[in-house]
Amino acid sequence: MLDQNTPPLITLTTDFGYKDPFVGMMKGVILKINPKARIVDITHDISPHNIREAALTLGMSYNFFPPKTVHVVVVDPGVGSNRRPILVITDHHYFIGPDNGVFSLVYSSHSETLGVVQITSEHYFMPHRGPTFHGRDIFAPAAAWLTRGIETTKFGDMITDYVTLPFPSVSLPTNTTIEGEVVYIDRFGNAITNIKGEALNTLYNTNTGGKLKVVSKGKQTDLKNYYSEVADKGLYSLVNSTGYLELFVYRGNAAALFDIKIGDIVGVMLTG
Amino acid sequence: MLDQNTPPLITLTTDFGYKDPFVGMMKGVILKINPKARIVDITHDISPHNIREAALTLGMSYNFFPPKTVHVVVVDPGVGSNRRPILVITDHHYFIGPDNGVFSLVYSSHSETLGVVQITSEHYFMPHRGPTFHGRDIFAPAAAWLTRGIETTKFGDMITDYVTLPFPSVSLPTNTTIEGEVVYIDRFGNAITNIKGEALNTLYNTNTGGKLKVVSKGKQTDLKNYYSEVADKGLYSLVNSTGYLELFVYRGNAAALFDIKIGDIVGVMLTG
Amino acid sequence: MLDQNTPPLITLTTDFGYKDPFVGMMKGVILKINPKARIVDITHDISPHNIREAALTLGMSYNFFPPKTVHVVVVDPGVGSNRRPILVITDHHYFIGPDNGVFSLVYSSHSETLGVVQITSEHYFMPHRGPTFHGRDIFAPAAAWLTRGIETTKFGDMITDYVTLPFPSVSLPTNTTIEGEVVYIDRFGNAITNIKGEALNTLYNTNTGGKLKVVSKGKQTDLKNYYSEVADKGLYSLVNSTGYLELFVYRGNAAALFDIKIGDIVGVMLTG
Repeated sequence: MLDQNTPPLITLTTDFGYKDPFVGMMKGVILKINPKARIVDITHDISPHNIREAALTLGMSYNFFPPKTVHVVVVDPGVGSNRRPILVITDHHYFIGPDNGVFSLVYSSHSETLGVVQITSEHYFMPHRGPTFHGRDIFAPAAAWLTRGIETTKFGDMITDYVTLPFPSVSLPTNTTIEGEVVYIDRFGNAITNIKGEALNTLYNTNTGGKLKVVSKGKQTDLKNYYSEVADKGLYSLVNSTGYLELFVYRGNAAALFDIKIGDIVGVMLTG
Repeated sequence: MLDQNTPPLITLTTDFGYKDPFVGMMKGVILKINPKARIVDITHDISPHNIREAALTLGMSYNFFPPKTVHVVVVDPGVGSNRRPILVITDHHYFIGPDNGVFSLVYSSHSETLGVVQITSEHYFMPHRGPTFHGRDIFAPAAAWLTRGIETTKFGDMITDYVTLPFPSVSLPTNTTIEGEVVYIDRFGNAITNIKGEALNTLYNTNTGGKLKVVSKGKQTDLKNYYSEVADKGLYSLVNSTGYLELFVYRGNAAALFDIKIGDIVGVMLTG
Repeated sequence: MLDQNTPPLITLTTDFGYKDPFVGMMKGVILKINPKARIVDITHDISPHNIREAALTLGMSYNFFPPKTVHVVVVDPGVGSNRRPILVITDHHYFIGPDNGVFSLVYSSHSETLGVVQITSEHYFMPHRGPTFHGRDIFAPAAAWLTRGIETTKFGDMITDYVTLPFPSVSLPTNTTIEGEVVYIDRFGNAITNIKGEALNTLYNTNTGGKLKVVSKGKQTDLKNYYSEVADKGLYSLVNSTGYLELFVYRGNAAALFDIKIGDIVGVMLTG
């Protein structure tokens, strides 16, 4: 049950965009049920139907929110079908959305303290709901009721066969190289990979010194600490604010200038 | 007068976009007058000067907000001229904006319980106001004062000659057909018509059975219940979450793929 | 110290856009430190790395917010380098961001009541901070702590050598002419200049009458009071809602139709 002393917090992550009134409707529904709820937008500009992008976006951000925050994610191409609405419980946060893999990165980070409830209790749905907008009719009201202190067990039964999407993993072809790929490109054109900063440290420490080189698109890039450490418009890399290796151009758009796309292979090698 | 126990709620719908600071200024003005007001954005991406689009957007969404919500709409090409600022009162909500037809769909849904006040009391305006930004200088402060409990009668006198925009209506050329048109295209490319789901039921019930076919752009489309009921990229239709007939492509952009535009005719026919 | 009776208010102005989760992360950090803080977005669509645009956007809007508002600005290409994080104190507001000139227009308006603190007290930073996202790791937490009543002196020492960006100034080549330039183009295509409305009054009053003409792109435009005062699609001018001369096309995009760009010269002349 949520602590009633601080205002309850709900975040929203959707592919509804900023033009249509769908997000506004969800907020209206939430505030009708719990007028004290605070609502924070993570983003509504997930590419339409892109479950993987939503999972990554949520994965980058949810940890920065206070304990007991309820994170609602609505990227839901299967709405109305038999895909299940779920409530995910970790030691610090709640997550509500469709069971389509959008919480995959939450599962992989909380394997020991995870509970997943299939939301079936229609008592916490909108009374006149339809089959095409569960964000408004199921997920928003369930989140609002949860912030009013309804026990998670009231929403439905625990399940263990929730959907997990495979995410590309990092490989170590030799003990002086790491191979990963670009998984996200941000508004500045920075290309974020799935290679953790710690993996670079391990590579460096396992071996007897040398210099780390990051290779992408046939180009060797130097590893820097921050963006403005360089002055030219070349391709460089750094470990970014979420702890992952990232390719960048200082005050430039790396993805556009070097034609970098999601899925592009990025290698790290220790040179003598 | 507003109930003082729950935090007062103001929604904003404008064509100001997300780049300029105009919406932020309005929020500052509101919070200066009533620091307890909650502000929810419905959208700020109404096409510039498109009063009809704003009316539809508001019409789709206002009912999902709690009673006593104050809905401010600023799509106002006539700002500074003699078009009047108005406060619209229905049984459940308040609406504040220019008298240019932007509340037309509110009027048509509340003909029996409607009050419209011409806002003239300069006491509730910004002290140093100009002729080009009434969103900031008149509508935002009026909404903020209203949420502080100022009686609606204090804002000005009732009027009855408020502006109503004509909206396309549905026709029934025969007793087995309905003809309407596309009135809104959402970010997914779904084409929303002005044909209500209930009209389809009536058509079906009036007659002795048969199958409903939706015709648009020379194509016959099948009526479905939800998006993922189909697997191919054909054009289909369903009754959407706001209760209107909508053309869609599953995980595709119907408007782009089938060149559907606002104003396109959509027919529904009962076939034997 | 902030008054504890009204909810504390923080505004955000960044170049992070609306797609990535960076702004959401900042809000999570703020609400973790001060769950009562209210957060208002001014804009997140500052052109990437455009410090000048951020300074203008902030300059147009901060005065409309309540006293004691904390304005956080994160347009910060030099993040991680030795550019300093600062807290700016004026008689009515606080400002937090990088010392790169983004507060230049605040400095020029408050020269007599200004205090600038270099934020050095790591006690108010995020515990695990990196060199690439000070918006999340330094500015957001500093703002949140400030709204919890931490004295400004606790954040670091006063400095006087803060960075000021030169902004184009208006010249008066003769006593019947003013010359300025376009400094901002809004979403409607209106071209806002750096010529104050008061300067036009002075020009008019200094001389013995006549008519003011605004000249831009080789075209003479008439000065109007509000947009809908004209009906045709010609180029006109008015003194806008922030008190500056602006070029516009009624229900049209002046910048696009007349190829107006930031930096274009605009002249005002008194004709006989």
